[in-house]
Amino acid sequence: MRDDAILRGHGGRIDEAERLYPEAPQPWVDLSTGVSPYAYPIPAVDPDLYRRLPLGRDTARLADAAAAAYGRPAGTALLPVPGSEMAIRLLPLVLGAKARVGVVGRTYSSHAAAWEDAGAEVRPLADLPDPAARDLDVVVLVNPNNPDGALVPRPALLDFAARWSAAGRRLVVDEAFADVTPEHTLLALPSLPDGVVVLRSLGKFFGLAGLRVGFVAVPERAAMPWRRRLGDWPVSGPACAIAAAALSDAGWIAAMRARLAADRRRLDALLVGAGLTVLGGTDLFVLAEGPAGVDLVDRFARAGLLVRGFAHTPNRYRFGLPGDEPGWRRLEAACASFAAAAAGR
Amino acid sequence: MRDDAILRGHGGRIDEAERLYPEAPQPWVDLSTGVSPYAYPIPAVDPDLYRRLPLGRDTARLADAAAAAYGRPAGTALLPVPGSEMAIRLLPLVLGAKARVGVVGRTYSSHAAAWEDAGAEVRPLADLPDPAARDLDVVVLVNPNNPDGALVPRPALLDFAARWSAAGRRLVVDEAFADVTPEHTLLALPSLPDGVVVLRSLGKFFGLAGLRVGFVAVPERAAMPWRRRLGDWPVSGPACAIAAAALSDAGWIAAMRARLAADRRRLDALLVGAGLTVLGGTDLFVLAEGPAGVDLVDRFARAGLLVRGFAHTPNRYRFGLPGDEPGWRRLEAACASFAAAAAGR
Repeated sequence: MRDDAILRGHGGRIDEAERLYPEAPQPWVDLSTGVSPYAYPIPAVDPDLYRRLPLGRDTARLADAAAAAYGRPAGTALLPVPGSEMAIRLLPLVLGAKARVGVVGRTYSSHAAAWEDAGAEVRPLADLPDPAARDLDVVVLVNPNNPDGALVPRPALLDFAARWSAAGRRLVVDEAFADVTPEHTLLALPSLPDGVVVLRSLGKFFGLAGLRVGFVAVPERAAMPWRRRLGDWPVSGPACAIAAAALSDAGWIAAMRARLAADRRRLDALLVGAGLTVLGGTDLFVLAEGPAGVDLVDRFARAGLLVRGFAHTPNRYRFGLPGDEPGWRRLEAACASFAAAAAGR
Repeated sequence: MRDDAILRGHGGRIDEAERLYPEAPQPWVDLSTGVSPYAYPIPAVDPDLYRRLPLGRDTARLADAAAAAYGRPAGTALLPVPGSEMAIRLLPLVLGAKARVGVVGRTYSSHAAAWEDAGAEVRPLADLPDPAARDLDVVVLVNPNNPDGALVPRPALLDFAARWSAAGRRLVVDEAFADVTPEHTLLALPSLPDGVVVLRSLGKFFGLAGLRVGFVAVPERAAMPWRRRLGDWPVSGPACAIAAAALSDAGWIAAMRARLAADRRRLDALLVGAGLTVLGGTDLFVLAEGPAGVDLVDRFARAGLLVRGFAHTPNRYRFGLPGDEPGWRRLEAACASFAAAAAGR
């Protein structure tokens, strides 16, 4: 087995995959990220947006487009950030690095890393804690969760949030993949409970991970510390315009939800057919379990397919969606080859 | 006089200027920022850069291009950031918000604001402090300074830095405008003294303020806290590619230095001819003083020229360079009109 630990950290490391597997067929099919393979088409950008500082109206237009796509509770600030990853990194600096933090479930590793780097005490939680628990200041929930797709339904989350934050505690809800479960976003509510921070990401659903645009949603009275740390121009002028166009395109959004749902059914069926156990997912990725002792990251990488492995659960894998028929065919062939090998074992 | 205080905060607020002066001639000539009016031409961008997460090689290519343009002392990390403004905001979080901070000269207001927002004790300094001074932990110097162009020559600064940081203290040198004084950048040295943080900005010299790209240069062993706070993908893929192209274009850079120097001489002569006193500047802007009791921000705004005023020195103004002959002619006409009025007063 190769030294592919680096492929088990973050997804999307095609350059490392190419280095580790120089004989793999080109081009690589990257299934490692959960980023949609169907990118929103980049509109023409006014060259002036590269030249001048972003204006208040550029940022306001982006926030309004986000409100149209996500919803915006009354009195809630939707602050553009240069990727939700940076918002995750800034969270301890805004909410207080001395916090005792519970992170729900096995989830996106940057959350715990950001708090630990800042010196906070981080505890993994199997589930949302009892709202009466007195030993935590902050709970972080990725909803739906990455990589298993676990979802706390909105009524239950809202009930928890109200009781949790009434005690002055904070709840961070990372909705990076919520575009495909819009019925559960907290942003479509008429009001956001105090103490709640919602994160959104443009990159996944719109297939624009390279653009680095996300949002922090907080009650307006909690927005100033974010504004201060982000400065006046956190998102580039061209990115504001491209993201605003994407978020305003309700027709594209609706059609894409249907397309991703169909693709996800196809991916589920393919993986089950190959003998993998599907553990969960969203319409942007599937988490599946393979047999112990078989490294599917390595096996698929030899076929030019980058899937996401996890350091602590070595026989679980996250599969994103192939974006075209050659990609599907390569995945189907690799699955068939694996199934045949497993049958002959 | 109108309520134009908002035009005395940051430059570049053309939208506010249009709101305050709806009768001004269009389009506005924005001289308020110190951003070059000659934008580096945006190259075609591989659409894939919008789609996938920036790879390590994208960021490395950008850092190498920055090293070619700026220099890179041995063992120094050049970390891309989404605009140097965000680096300014993060400085207290990396260096320690409990610091006693001296900010040299009247300078870019975000420096003091970032430290004050973080709870640091901030003291204005007329000049670099005595390196034996025991009552400061951090000194911030903008070199050359914005808005007066004051420059601490490199030998003097290097001597100060060596003695200052030997005592474990930090020196932040914001070189946002150093592209036009390359003989003074600390990044062209063979080594960077411990405890020194250098900031660079792409937006000013390359006329790409809307792109939001800057750099933090620190000794490699001080880079981890920055990397942690910035996350893995702080700058978008397209911005990495565009900025790398600009920084690699040595011919454009050399020709632009000559062009900006010629324009600056023209601007100096124009302002002096109008009876203003030129107090300083760089080849990207000029700081000039007008007569007491005359608000030139307001006067020029009526003519569709946005110049930068300052809250604490109401008869000083910063003028950026017009980018074309219609812009120069509008400024010349406004200066002539002002000079005639002053002569008749």
